[in-house]
Amino acid sequence: MKPKKTVVLLSGGMDSATLLYQCKAEGQEVRALAFNYGQRHLRELEAAKDLAGALQVQLAIMDLTDLARILPGNALTDKKVNLPIGHYAEDAMKATVVPNRNMIFVSIALAHAISLGYDAVGYAAQTGEAGDGQSLYHDCRPVFVHSLASLATICDEHKVELDCPFLCLTKAQIIHLGNDLKVPFAKTWSCYYAGGDKHCGRCGTCVKRQHGFLAAGLSDSTEYEDKEFAFRAFNIK
Amino acid sequence: MKPKKTVVLLSGGMDSATLLYQCKAEGQEVRALAFNYGQRHLRELEAAKDLAGALQVQLAIMDLTDLARILPGNALTDKKVNLPIGHYAEDAMKATVVPNRNMIFVSIALAHAISLGYDAVGYAAQTGEAGDGQSLYHDCRPVFVHSLASLATICDEHKVELDCPFLCLTKAQIIHLGNDLKVPFAKTWSCYYAGGDKHCGRCGTCVKRQHGFLAAGLSDSTEYEDKEFAFRAFNIK
Repeated sequence: MKPKKTVVLLSGGMDSATLLYQCKAEGQEVRALAFNYGQRHLRELEAAKDLAGALQVQLAIMDLTDLARILPGNALTDKKVNLPIGHYAEDAMKATVVPNRNMIFVSIALAHAISLGYDAVGYAAQTGEAGDGQSLYHDCRPVFVHSLASLATICDEHKVELDCPFLCLTKAQIIHLGNDLKVPFAKTWSCYYAGGDKHCGRCGTCVKRQHGFLAAGLSDSTEYEDKEFAFRAFNIK
Repeated sequence: MKPKKTVVLLSGGMDSATLLYQCKAEGQEVRALAFNYGQRHLRELEAAKDLAGALQVQLAIMDLTDLARILPGNALTDKKVNLPIGHYAEDAMKATVVPNRNMIFVSIALAHAISLGYDAVGYAAQTGEAGDGQSLYHDCRPVFVHSLASLATICDEHKVELDCPFLCLTKAQIIHLGNDLKVPFAKTWSCYYAGGDKHCGRCGTCVKRQHGFLAAGLSDSTEYEDKEFAFRAFNIK
Protein backbone atom coordinates (compact mmCIF):
# COMPACT_ATOMS: atom_id res chain seq x y z
CA MET A 1 0.00 0.00 0.00
CA LYS A 2 1.24 3.46 -0.83
CA PRO A 3 1.87 5.68 2.16
CA LYS A 4 -0.62 8.46 2.82
CA LYS A 5 0.66 11.85 1.69
CA THR A 6 0.04 14.75 4.02
CA VAL A 7 0.84 18.46 4.00
CA VAL A 8 1.25 19.47 7.64
CA LEU A 9 0.54 23.08 8.58
CA LEU A 10 3.64 23.77 10.63
CA SER A 11 3.70 26.90 12.78
CA GLY A 12 6.85 26.02 14.67
CA GLY A 13 4.88 25.55 17.89
CA MET A 14 4.47 22.42 19.99
CA ASP A 15 1.17 21.19 18.56
CA SER A 16 2.07 21.26 14.88
CA ALA A 17 5.54 19.87 15.64
CA THR A 18 3.90 16.93 17.40
CA LEU A 19 1.59 16.39 14.43
CA LEU A 20 4.57 16.44 12.06
CA TYR A 21 6.34 13.82 14.16
CA GLN A 22 3.20 11.73 14.40
CA CYS A 23 2.67 11.68 10.62
CA LYS A 24 6.32 10.70 10.10
CA ALA A 25 6.07 8.00 12.80
CA GLU A 26 3.08 6.56 10.92
CA GLY A 27 5.23 6.24 7.82
CA GLN A 28 3.40 8.93 5.88
CA GLU A 29 4.96 10.92 3.06
CA VAL A 30 5.03 14.38 4.57
CA ARG A 31 5.57 17.95 3.47
CA ALA A 32 5.19 21.01 5.63
CA LEU A 33 3.78 24.47 4.96
CA ALA A 34 4.33 27.60 7.02
CA PHE A 35 3.44 31.26 6.53
CA ASN A 36 5.18 34.54 6.93
CA TYR A 37 2.09 36.66 7.58
CA GLY A 38 3.82 39.59 9.17
CA GLN A 39 3.57 38.05 12.62
CA ARG A 40 5.59 39.63 15.43
CA HIS A 41 6.96 36.25 16.34
CA LEU A 42 8.72 35.57 13.07
CA ARG A 43 11.09 33.60 15.21
CA GLU A 44 8.60 30.71 14.97
CA LEU A 45 9.56 30.23 11.32
CA GLU A 46 13.13 29.46 12.37
CA ALA A 47 11.67 26.81 14.64
CA ALA A 48 9.61 25.43 11.75
CA LYS A 49 12.78 25.20 9.63
CA ASP A 50 14.67 23.41 12.41
CA LEU A 51 11.85 20.94 12.97
CA ALA A 52 11.34 20.15 9.29
CA GLY A 53 15.09 19.92 8.81
CA ALA A 54 15.46 17.45 11.68
CA LEU A 55 12.98 15.11 9.98
CA GLN A 56 14.19 15.86 6.44
CA VAL A 57 10.73 17.10 5.54
CA GLN A 58 10.40 19.58 2.68
CA LEU A 59 9.05 22.86 4.04
CA ALA A 60 7.47 25.61 1.95
CA ILE A 61 7.22 29.02 3.60
CA MET A 62 4.71 31.17 1.80
CA ASP A 63 4.99 34.93 1.84
CA LEU A 64 1.69 36.32 3.10
CA THR A 65 3.19 39.47 4.55
CA ASP A 66 0.73 41.68 2.75
CA LEU A 67 -2.04 40.19 4.88
CA ALA A 68 -0.97 42.37 7.81
CA ARG A 69 -1.72 45.49 5.77
CA ILE A 70 -5.36 44.59 5.22
CA LEU A 71 -5.97 43.27 8.75
CA PRO A 72 -5.30 46.23 11.02
CA GLY A 73 -6.06 46.18 14.71
CA ASN A 74 -4.77 42.85 15.98
CA ALA A 75 -1.76 42.56 18.22
CA LEU A 76 -0.01 39.79 16.28
CA THR A 77 0.46 41.68 13.03
CA ASP A 78 -0.20 45.31 13.91
CA LYS A 79 2.75 46.75 15.82
CA LYS A 80 0.60 49.69 16.95
CA VAL A 81 -1.50 47.34 19.07
CA ASN A 82 -0.02 46.31 22.42
CA LEU A 83 0.42 42.63 23.03
CA PRO A 84 -1.44 41.62 26.20
CA ILE A 85 0.12 39.43 28.86
CA GLY A 86 -1.64 36.79 30.90
CA HIS A 87 -4.01 33.89 30.32
CA TYR A 88 -6.00 33.13 27.16
CA ALA A 89 -9.20 33.15 29.18
CA GLU A 90 -8.82 36.88 29.79
CA ASP A 91 -10.75 39.37 27.73
CA ALA A 92 -7.62 41.32 26.82
CA MET A 93 -6.40 38.32 24.83
CA LYS A 94 -8.95 39.09 22.10
CA ALA A 95 -6.34 41.48 20.75
CA THR A 96 -4.30 38.44 19.71
CA VAL A 97 -6.99 37.14 17.36
CA VAL A 98 -5.91 37.48 13.74
CA PRO A 99 -9.36 37.24 12.21
CA ASN A 100 -10.06 34.03 10.34
CA ARG A 101 -6.35 33.29 10.20
CA ASN A 102 -6.63 29.54 10.28
CA MET A 103 -9.26 29.38 7.57
CA ILE A 104 -6.85 31.32 5.36
CA PHE A 105 -4.01 28.94 6.22
CA VAL A 106 -6.12 25.82 5.74
CA SER A 107 -7.54 27.00 2.41
CA ILE A 108 -4.04 27.64 1.07
CA ALA A 109 -2.79 24.32 2.44
CA LEU A 110 -5.68 22.53 0.71
CA ALA A 111 -4.74 24.22 -2.57
CA HIS A 112 -1.10 23.22 -2.07
CA ALA A 113 -2.09 19.61 -1.32
CA ILE A 114 -4.37 19.46 -4.38
CA SER A 115 -1.58 20.82 -6.59
CA LEU A 116 0.77 18.14 -5.28
CA GLY A 117 -1.82 15.36 -5.58
CA TYR A 118 -1.57 14.79 -1.82
CA ASP A 119 -4.24 13.04 0.26
CA ALA A 120 -4.55 15.21 3.32
CA VAL A 121 -3.80 18.41 5.16
CA GLY A 122 -2.75 17.95 8.78
CA TYR A 123 -3.99 20.76 10.99
CA ALA A 124 -3.11 20.72 14.69
CA ALA A 125 -6.10 22.77 15.85
CA GLN A 126 -6.62 22.31 19.56
CA THR A 127 -9.59 23.53 21.48
CA GLY A 128 -8.98 21.23 24.45
CA GLU A 129 -9.19 23.25 27.63
CA ALA A 130 -12.18 25.16 26.32
CA GLY A 131 -14.01 21.86 26.11
CA ASP A 132 -17.33 23.54 25.59
CA GLY A 133 -16.10 24.90 22.30
CA GLN A 134 -15.90 28.42 23.62
CA SER A 135 -12.27 28.91 22.66
CA LEU A 136 -11.16 32.49 22.18
CA TYR A 137 -10.03 31.50 18.70
CA HIS A 138 -13.26 30.72 16.89
CA ASP A 139 -11.31 28.97 14.15
CA CYS A 140 -10.14 26.37 16.68
CA ARG A 141 -13.66 25.50 17.85
CA PRO A 142 -14.92 22.03 16.95
CA VAL A 143 -18.02 23.31 15.15
CA PHE A 144 -15.85 25.46 12.92
CA VAL A 145 -13.16 22.86 12.31
CA HIS A 146 -15.69 20.13 11.49
CA SER A 147 -17.43 22.39 8.96
CA LEU A 148 -14.08 23.31 7.45
CA ALA A 149 -13.25 19.61 7.16
CA SER A 150 -16.45 18.91 5.22
CA LEU A 151 -15.75 21.84 2.94
CA ALA A 152 -12.29 20.45 2.26
CA THR A 153 -13.74 17.31 0.72
CA ILE A 154 -15.77 19.20 -1.90
CA CYS A 155 -13.50 22.06 -2.92
CA ASP A 156 -11.92 20.22 -5.84
CA GLU A 157 -12.23 17.17 -8.03
CA HIS A 158 -9.20 15.78 -6.19
CA LYS A 159 -10.41 14.99 -2.69
CA VAL A 160 -8.23 16.08 0.21
CA GLU A 161 -8.99 15.28 3.84
CA LEU A 162 -8.48 17.77 6.62
CA ASP A 163 -7.01 15.78 9.52
CA CYS A 164 -7.31 17.41 12.93
CA PRO A 165 -6.39 14.65 15.36
CA PHE A 166 -5.67 16.97 18.30
CA LEU A 167 -8.90 18.91 18.21
CA CYS A 168 -10.25 17.59 21.47
CA LEU A 169 -6.98 16.92 23.27
CA THR A 170 -5.74 19.09 26.09
CA LYS A 171 -2.36 20.78 25.83
CA ALA A 172 -1.05 18.30 28.42
CA GLN A 173 -2.21 15.36 26.30
CA ILE A 174 -0.46 16.77 23.23
CA ILE A 175 2.72 17.26 25.27
CA HIS A 176 2.53 13.64 26.45
CA LEU A 177 2.07 12.44 22.90
CA GLY A 178 4.95 14.61 21.68
CA ASN A 179 7.12 13.33 24.50
CA ASP A 180 6.41 9.73 23.44
CA LEU A 181 7.26 10.67 19.83
CA LYS A 182 10.51 12.31 20.99
CA VAL A 183 9.55 15.75 19.66
CA PRO A 184 12.43 18.12 20.46
CA PHE A 185 10.23 20.62 22.28
CA ALA A 186 13.24 22.83 22.95
CA LYS A 187 13.32 23.51 19.20
CA THR A 188 9.68 24.61 19.10
CA TRP A 189 8.60 28.22 19.53
CA SER A 190 5.41 29.51 21.14
CA CYS A 191 6.07 33.06 22.32
CA TYR A 192 4.17 35.91 20.64
CA TYR A 193 6.94 38.38 21.33
CA ALA A 194 9.54 38.75 18.62
CA GLY A 195 12.12 38.60 21.39
CA GLY A 196 15.52 37.03 21.39
CA ASP A 197 16.40 33.43 22.06
CA LYS A 198 14.20 33.05 25.11
CA HIS A 199 10.43 32.81 25.47
CA CYS A 200 9.03 35.78 27.40
CA GLY A 201 7.03 33.64 29.83
CA ARG A 202 4.24 36.19 30.13
CA CYS A 203 2.17 36.23 26.93
CA GLY A 204 -0.87 33.98 26.45
CA THR A 205 0.93 31.28 24.57
CA CYS A 206 3.91 31.22 26.97
CA VAL A 207 1.53 30.86 29.90
CA LYS A 208 -0.32 28.05 28.16
CA ARG A 209 2.96 26.32 27.35
CA GLN A 210 4.09 26.38 30.98
CA HIS A 211 0.72 25.30 32.36
CA GLY A 212 0.70 22.48 29.78
CA PHE A 213 4.01 21.03 30.97
CA LEU A 214 2.87 21.38 34.56
CA ALA A 215 -0.41 19.56 33.87
CA ALA A 216 1.45 16.87 31.93
CA GLY A 217 3.79 16.36 34.87
CA LEU A 218 6.78 16.69 32.58
CA SER A 219 9.75 18.96 32.96
CA ASP A 220 9.85 22.00 30.71
CA SER A 221 13.26 22.63 29.18
CA THR A 222 12.16 25.94 27.62
CA GLU A 223 14.12 29.01 28.66
CA TYR A 224 11.85 31.85 29.79
CA GLU A 225 12.79 35.46 30.47
CA ASP A 226 10.30 35.37 33.33
CA LYS A 227 10.04 31.91 34.85
CA GLU A 228 7.69 32.88 37.66
CA PHE A 229 4.91 34.92 36.09
CA ALA A 230 2.85 32.03 34.70
CA PHE A 231 2.59 30.46 38.13
CA ARG A 232 2.64 33.49 40.43
CA ALA A 233 -0.06 35.30 38.47
CA PHE A 234 -2.39 32.33 38.73
CA ASN A 235 -1.56 31.38 42.31
CA ILE A 236 0.09 28.15 41.24
CA LYS A 237 2.81 27.10 43.68
CA MET B 1 -30.85 52.97 9.67
CA LYS B 2 -27.17 52.61 9.00
CA PRO B 3 -26.25 51.36 5.54
CA LYS B 4 -24.99 47.80 5.26
CA LYS B 5 -21.23 47.62 4.89
CA THR B 6 -19.89 45.17 2.34
CA VAL B 7 -16.45 44.17 1.08
CA VAL B 8 -16.92 43.13 -2.55
CA LEU B 9 -14.47 40.64 -4.01
CA LEU B 10 -13.65 42.43 -7.24
CA SER B 11 -11.84 40.51 -9.96
CA GLY B 12 -12.30 43.12 -12.65
CA GLY B 13 -14.67 40.83 -14.57
CA MET B 14 -18.31 41.36 -15.44
CA ASP B 15 -19.88 39.49 -12.55
CA SER B 16 -18.03 41.15 -9.70
CA ALA B 17 -18.37 44.54 -11.41
CA THR B 18 -22.13 44.03 -11.53
CA LEU B 19 -22.16 43.09 -7.86
CA LEU B 20 -20.16 46.20 -7.00
CA TYR B 21 -22.65 48.37 -8.87
CA GLN B 22 -25.59 46.59 -7.27
CA CYS B 23 -24.27 47.12 -3.74
CA LYS B 24 -23.69 50.80 -4.48
CA ALA B 25 -27.15 51.13 -6.06
CA GLU B 26 -28.62 49.73 -2.85
CA GLY B 27 -26.93 52.50 -0.89
CA GLN B 28 -24.47 50.21 0.84
CA GLU B 29 -21.13 51.35 2.17
CA VAL B 30 -18.76 49.46 -0.06
CA ARG B 31 -15.09 48.57 -0.23
CA ALA B 32 -13.48 46.30 -2.76
CA LEU B 33 -10.74 43.70 -2.49
CA ALA B 34 -8.71 42.20 -5.33
CA PHE B 35 -5.70 39.90 -5.48
CA ASN B 36 -2.48 39.78 -7.37
CA TYR B 37 -1.97 36.03 -7.24
CA GLY B 38 0.46 35.78 -10.10
CA GLN B 39 -2.33 35.36 -12.65
CA ARG B 40 -1.43 35.64 -16.33
CA HIS B 41 -4.23 38.12 -16.81
CA LEU B 42 -2.89 40.75 -14.46
CA ARG B 43 -4.65 43.14 -16.79
CA GLU B 44 -7.85 42.40 -14.83
CA LEU B 45 -6.46 44.36 -11.88
CA GLU B 46 -6.34 47.50 -14.05
CA ALA B 47 -10.01 46.88 -14.78
CA ALA B 48 -10.70 46.49 -11.05
CA LYS B 49 -8.99 49.83 -10.39
CA ASP B 50 -11.00 51.55 -13.15
CA LEU B 51 -14.27 50.13 -11.87
CA ALA B 52 -13.62 51.00 -8.23
CA GLY B 53 -12.38 54.43 -9.26
CA ALA B 54 -15.51 55.14 -11.28
CA LEU B 55 -17.65 54.53 -8.18
CA GLN B 56 -15.18 56.12 -5.77
CA VAL B 57 -14.92 52.83 -3.91
CA GLN B 58 -11.78 52.14 -1.90
CA LEU B 59 -9.97 49.17 -3.40
CA ALA B 60 -7.31 47.10 -1.63
CA ILE B 61 -5.16 44.91 -3.85
CA MET B 62 -3.45 42.25 -1.82
CA ASP B 63 -0.16 40.75 -2.92
CA LEU B 64 -0.60 36.98 -3.06
CA THR B 65 2.02 36.45 -5.75
CA ASP B 66 3.80 33.81 -3.74
CA LEU B 67 0.75 31.59 -4.13
CA ALA B 68 1.79 30.75 -7.70
CA ARG B 69 5.01 29.22 -6.39
CA ILE B 70 3.24 26.66 -4.22
CA LEU B 71 0.50 25.83 -6.74
CA PRO B 72 2.34 24.49 -9.76
CA GLY B 73 0.55 22.91 -12.69
CA ASN B 74 -2.37 25.20 -13.46
CA ALA B 75 -2.52 27.34 -16.58
CA LEU B 76 -3.52 30.56 -14.85
CA THR B 77 -0.44 30.95 -12.68
CA ASP B 78 2.08 28.51 -14.11
CA LYS B 79 3.53 29.88 -17.35
CA LYS B 80 4.85 26.43 -18.21
CA VAL B 81 1.30 25.15 -18.66
CA ASN B 82 -0.43 26.02 -21.92
CA LEU B 83 -3.66 27.93 -21.69
CA PRO B 84 -6.43 25.99 -23.46
CA ILE B 85 -8.85 27.66 -25.85
CA GLY B 86 -12.53 26.82 -26.24
CA HIS B 87 -15.55 26.27 -24.04
CA TYR B 88 -15.59 25.74 -20.27
CA ALA B 89 -17.46 22.49 -20.76
CA GLU B 90 -14.42 20.95 -22.40
CA ASP B 91 -12.10 18.70 -20.49
CA ALA B 92 -9.02 20.71 -21.45
CA MET B 93 -10.35 23.63 -19.41
CA LYS B 94 -9.44 21.80 -16.21
CA ALA B 95 -5.99 23.27 -16.69
CA THR B 96 -7.48 26.67 -15.80
CA VAL B 97 -8.53 25.57 -12.32
CA VAL B 98 -6.41 27.26 -9.65
CA PRO B 99 -7.16 24.80 -6.86
CA ASN B 100 -9.37 26.15 -4.11
CA ARG B 101 -8.72 29.69 -5.29
CA ASN B 102 -12.04 31.13 -4.28
CA MET B 103 -11.96 29.66 -0.79
CA ILE B 104 -8.62 31.40 -0.33
CA PHE B 105 -10.03 34.69 -1.61
CA VAL B 106 -13.20 34.43 0.46
CA SER B 107 -11.35 33.54 3.65
CA ILE B 108 -9.09 36.57 3.27
CA ALA B 109 -12.06 38.80 2.40
CA LEU B 110 -13.84 37.61 5.54
CA ALA B 111 -10.78 38.48 7.61
CA HIS B 112 -10.62 41.91 5.96
CA ALA B 113 -14.33 42.51 6.63
CA ILE B 114 -13.99 41.42 10.28
CA SER B 115 -11.01 43.75 10.76
CA LEU B 116 -13.02 46.65 9.35
CA GLY B 117 -16.13 45.80 11.36
CA TYR B 118 -18.05 45.29 8.10
CA ASP B 119 -21.28 43.27 7.80
CA ALA B 120 -20.75 41.24 4.68
CA VAL B 121 -18.52 39.95 1.94
CA GLY B 122 -20.01 40.12 -1.54
CA TYR B 123 -18.93 37.23 -3.72
CA ALA B 124 -20.16 37.04 -7.30
CA ALA B 125 -19.87 33.27 -7.66
CA GLN B 126 -21.94 32.08 -10.59
CA THR B 127 -22.67 28.50 -11.41
CA GLY B 128 -25.63 29.34 -13.67
CA GLU B 129 -25.25 27.42 -16.90
CA ALA B 130 -24.08 24.36 -15.00
CA GLY B 131 -27.41 24.37 -13.23
CA ASP B 132 -26.89 20.88 -11.88
CA GLY B 133 -23.98 22.14 -9.84
CA GLN B 134 -21.47 20.36 -12.02
CA SER B 135 -19.44 23.49 -12.74
CA LEU B 136 -15.82 22.92 -13.69
CA TYR B 137 -14.89 25.21 -10.83
CA HIS B 138 -15.91 23.28 -7.73
CA ASP B 139 -15.65 26.43 -5.66
CA CYS B 140 -18.50 27.97 -7.67
CA ARG B 141 -20.87 25.06 -7.06
CA PRO B 142 -23.90 25.80 -4.88
CA VAL B 143 -23.13 23.04 -2.37
CA PHE B 144 -19.66 24.48 -1.85
CA VAL B 145 -20.74 28.10 -1.71
CA HIS B 146 -23.58 27.41 0.72
CA SER B 147 -21.22 25.54 3.06
CA LEU B 148 -18.71 28.36 2.81
CA ALA B 149 -21.46 30.83 3.67
CA SER B 150 -22.35 28.91 6.84
CA LEU B 151 -18.71 28.76 7.81
CA ALA B 152 -18.45 32.53 7.38
CA THR B 153 -20.99 33.11 10.12
CA ILE B 154 -19.02 31.18 12.75
CA CYS B 155 -15.41 32.08 12.01
CA ASP B 156 -15.27 35.01 14.40
CA GLU B 157 -17.10 36.71 17.24
CA HIS B 158 -18.02 39.46 14.76
CA LYS B 159 -20.50 37.90 12.36
CA VAL B 160 -20.00 38.50 8.66
CA GLU B 161 -22.40 37.29 5.99
CA LEU B 162 -21.23 35.88 2.70
CA ASP B 163 -23.59 37.29 0.07
CA CYS B 164 -23.67 35.41 -3.24
CA PRO B 165 -26.69 36.85 -5.03
CA PHE B 166 -25.64 35.64 -8.48
CA LEU B 167 -25.06 32.03 -7.60
CA CYS B 168 -27.95 30.64 -9.59
CA LEU B 169 -28.14 33.28 -12.31
CA THR B 170 -27.01 32.63 -15.86
CA LYS B 171 -24.34 34.81 -17.42
CA ALA B 172 -27.06 36.39 -19.58
CA GLN B 173 -29.11 37.29 -16.49
CA ILE B 174 -26.08 38.92 -14.87
CA ILE B 175 -25.41 40.87 -18.06
CA HIS B 176 -29.03 42.07 -18.09
CA LEU B 177 -28.77 43.12 -14.47
CA GLY B 178 -25.48 44.90 -15.13
CA ASN B 179 -26.98 46.61 -18.13
CA ASP B 180 -29.85 47.93 -15.99
CA LEU B 181 -27.31 49.14 -13.42
CA LYS B 182 -25.28 50.87 -16.15
CA VAL B 183 -22.15 48.83 -15.48
CA PRO B 184 -19.48 50.00 -17.95
CA PHE B 185 -18.84 46.51 -19.32
CA ALA B 186 -16.21 47.88 -21.69
CA LYS B 187 -14.10 48.61 -18.60
CA THR B 188 -14.34 45.03 -17.34
CA TRP B 189 -11.80 42.38 -18.21
CA SER B 190 -12.42 38.65 -18.65
CA CYS B 191 -9.66 37.28 -20.88
CA TYR B 192 -7.20 34.81 -19.35
CA TYR B 193 -4.44 35.85 -21.72
CA ALA B 194 -2.16 38.58 -20.49
CA GLY B 195 -2.53 40.14 -23.92
CA GLY B 196 -2.74 43.76 -24.87
CA ASP B 197 -5.80 45.97 -24.88
CA LYS B 198 -8.07 43.50 -26.59
CA HIS B 199 -9.69 40.31 -25.33
CA CYS B 200 -8.40 37.26 -27.22
CA GLY B 201 -11.87 35.93 -28.00
CA ARG B 202 -10.76 32.30 -27.80
CA CYS B 203 -10.12 31.33 -24.17
CA GLY B 204 -12.86 29.88 -21.96
CA THR B 205 -13.80 33.13 -20.31
CA CYS B 206 -13.82 35.09 -23.61
CA VAL B 207 -16.11 32.47 -25.13
CA LYS B 208 -18.42 32.63 -22.13
CA ARG B 209 -18.47 36.41 -22.30
CA GLN B 210 -19.50 36.42 -25.96
CA HIS B 211 -22.09 33.69 -25.54
CA GLY B 212 -23.47 35.61 -22.55
CA PHE B 213 -24.06 38.79 -24.54
CA LEU B 214 -25.61 36.74 -27.35
CA ALA B 215 -27.97 34.95 -24.95
CA ALA B 216 -28.85 38.26 -23.31
CA GLY B 217 -29.71 39.73 -26.70
CA LEU B 218 -27.49 42.72 -25.98
CA SER B 219 -24.70 44.12 -28.09
CA ASP B 220 -21.17 43.40 -26.93
CA SER B 221 -18.89 46.42 -27.11
CA THR B 222 -15.81 44.36 -26.15
CA GLU B 223 -12.96 44.37 -28.64
CA TYR B 224 -11.77 40.85 -29.43
CA GLU B 225 -8.66 39.84 -31.35
CA ASP B 226 -10.72 37.03 -32.84
CA LYS B 227 -14.36 37.98 -33.18
CA GLU B 228 -15.48 34.82 -34.93
CA PHE B 229 -14.02 31.91 -32.98
CA ALA B 230 -16.61 31.84 -30.18
CA PHE B 231 -19.41 31.46 -32.69
CA ARG B 232 -17.74 29.53 -35.49
CA ALA B 233 -16.29 26.91 -33.14
CA PHE B 234 -19.72 26.21 -31.68
CA ASN B 235 -21.69 26.44 -34.91
CA ILE B 236 -23.48 29.59 -33.83
CA LYS B 237 -24.43 31.78 -36.77
